[in-house]
Amino acid sequence: MATIKDIANRLGISISTVSKGLNGASDISEELRQTVLDTAVEMGYSTKRSKKEEFRKLCLFVTNMEYETLDTFGYDIVLGFKQNAFQHKWDVTVVEITPEFQEEQKYDTYLLQHGYCGAFILGLALHNPWMEQMKTTTMPTVLFDNYIDGNPNVGYLGTDSFEGIHMAVEHLTNLGHKKIAFLNGSIGSLVSAERQEAFENAIQEYNIDCNENMMARGYFVADSAKHHVPTFLKEGTTAIVCANDLLAQGAITSCKEQGLRVPEDVSIIGFDNIPIAATTEPPLTTISQQRNELGRCAYTILNSLINHVCISKTLLRPQLVERESTTMVRK
Amino acid sequence: MATIKDIANRLGISISTVSKGLNGASDISEELRQTVLDTAVEMGYSTKRSKKEEFRKLCLFVTNMEYETLDTFGYDIVLGFKQNAFQHKWDVTVVEITPEFQEEQKYDTYLLQHGYCGAFILGLALHNPWMEQMKTTTMPTVLFDNYIDGNPNVGYLGTDSFEGIHMAVEHLTNLGHKKIAFLNGSIGSLVSAERQEAFENAIQEYNIDCNENMMARGYFVADSAKHHVPTFLKEGTTAIVCANDLLAQGAITSCKEQGLRVPEDVSIIGFDNIPIAATTEPPLTTISQQRNELGRCAYTILNSLINHVCISKTLLRPQLVERESTTMVRK
Repeated sequence: MATIKDIANRLGISISTVSKGLNGASDISEELRQTVLDTAVEMGYSTKRSKKEEFRKLCLFVTNMEYETLDTFGYDIVLGFKQNAFQHKWDVTVVEITPEFQEEQKYDTYLLQHGYCGAFILGLALHNPWMEQMKTTTMPTVLFDNYIDGNPNVGYLGTDSFEGIHMAVEHLTNLGHKKIAFLNGSIGSLVSAERQEAFENAIQEYNIDCNENMMARGYFVADSAKHHVPTFLKEGTTAIVCANDLLAQGAITSCKEQGLRVPEDVSIIGFDNIPIAATTEPPLTTISQQRNELGRCAYTILNSLINHVCISKTLLRPQLVERESTTMVRK
Repeated sequence: MATIKDIANRLGISISTVSKGLNGASDISEELRQTVLDTAVEMGYSTKRSKKEEFRKLCLFVTNMEYETLDTFGYDIVLGFKQNAFQHKWDVTVVEITPEFQEEQKYDTYLLQHGYCGAFILGLALHNPWMEQMKTTTMPTVLFDNYIDGNPNVGYLGTDSFEGIHMAVEHLTNLGHKKIAFLNGSIGSLVSAERQEAFENAIQEYNIDCNENMMARGYFVADSAKHHVPTFLKEGTTAIVCANDLLAQGAITSCKEQGLRVPEDVSIIGFDNIPIAATTEPPLTTISQQRNELGRCAYTILNSLINHVCISKTLLRPQLVERESTTMVRK
């Protein structure tokens, strides 16, 4: 781990100048400040050992995800993270990161420059610019729903997709369904890949009657369902597992448009249990993610990483929430 | 969640009698006390919501594992758990559990009877009597190296076996080894199964020259190695991955008995990094488990489970520790 002195030696400048560069003092040139930051990152310098009050700052980055209102997926996760961090006297800043932002800002440099000791990142897709930098970052980082192989500074947090999809299929087979379709989410996401594998395993285990026309990839939005549900129904599907509640909401609408009733003709099950799930018509049976607890755990893991406990993966249990969108298959 | 009143109603006795039964008071018969405890367990009663000081008791069960002296695998795990629990004002009792003990005592009843709010269990093998009870326990429980499907009260903690074995094979292939053998641990263990799968994956990925005679299952003790190492060597093995440091120590001895030098003729790599790894001749290259941190994490997870955060799985990163038992393959 490089020290301020190491950086000063490398650049041939004084320790106090390095310190000014790292702390954003105004009496050095912008160019020198950038050089100090870049060198600090290159040498693996990190503020993570600092115990000073003013340095107890964490960053929560969000992309590809809604989080500002109560009805969104991200709201409770952000809240849980902040609640736990505040309780332990950390300051948290939420920063939205577009792909352009990620192209412009180097991850480690950004954190160092703003004095963050670590970060929690929500919503990063596999093709997003910062994903590549996760392989080598020296900053303690927790990724929601993304796993990085071999970098001890990065931890993965999520809900167990295998158990969740397994629960959904088990619930439907217990209701007598044999022809079950799967409406999965975006391709560029780790959880979509996991849920696909989980569904294919469940097909085998429960001897489900499913073919390629009954498995589709949408986006995680309601409007995506209408492109796939009619095909499912042509195959004689009696139940649909959806990779999130918005897709399930869209699937309900799409079934109705085809003149079918939910759940009498088609059972539909969602994933996440966001607030909307209780208010769809009919209310949605879904696989719940403990989102406030995920946020709280994210803080716990980040704090562990800051203290050199290299947690690589943490999964929470999903739960089946039974409402009215699923019922016994019609004889 | 059943209350004391529910238990009293079920048994047709007073609340104060139930309370006496649960708290081990001496003025009720042993038979009635047992009936109260059994009924409490059956109805899912648990002390876990209690906030009273005198109930802040956790149990650490140990079986199939040495932990009492510094040089043992379990020592640092037990220490880390106690350190973190004591810091948060919990009392910890360590209890050794033989198979006979597990046959005699029902898990939930034992915890309830002794006023424990939860437990951490080290060393349980797949065939041990309590494993079956883990599927239905209502007590918050953290298992080291064991996973229970579908019970939200039980969390699994371990080191990522896939990453560990991958690191070991990558290290050896970087040194030019192509003929690599694998000395795995006991059959009745989840990590042995994971490490087997991980090694077979790594064979594919690195195009390793390995056949069935070069993969064996021993026990996690040094003496086990001598039954397998001669067979490995007949196949022209130049490097051996061992599932723990004791097996690696035995493999070194066995190679020497066959007239071969370590690492000049055969490279050997261990797993765990227990203190003995630094003192073998030559000192052992090994895949380290952060054992003190594992113990600390076990407390964190147990505390989460007690607070209804259903963590299902937590894995820590392994680390490669390079010493002198591995070197470039002979030309």
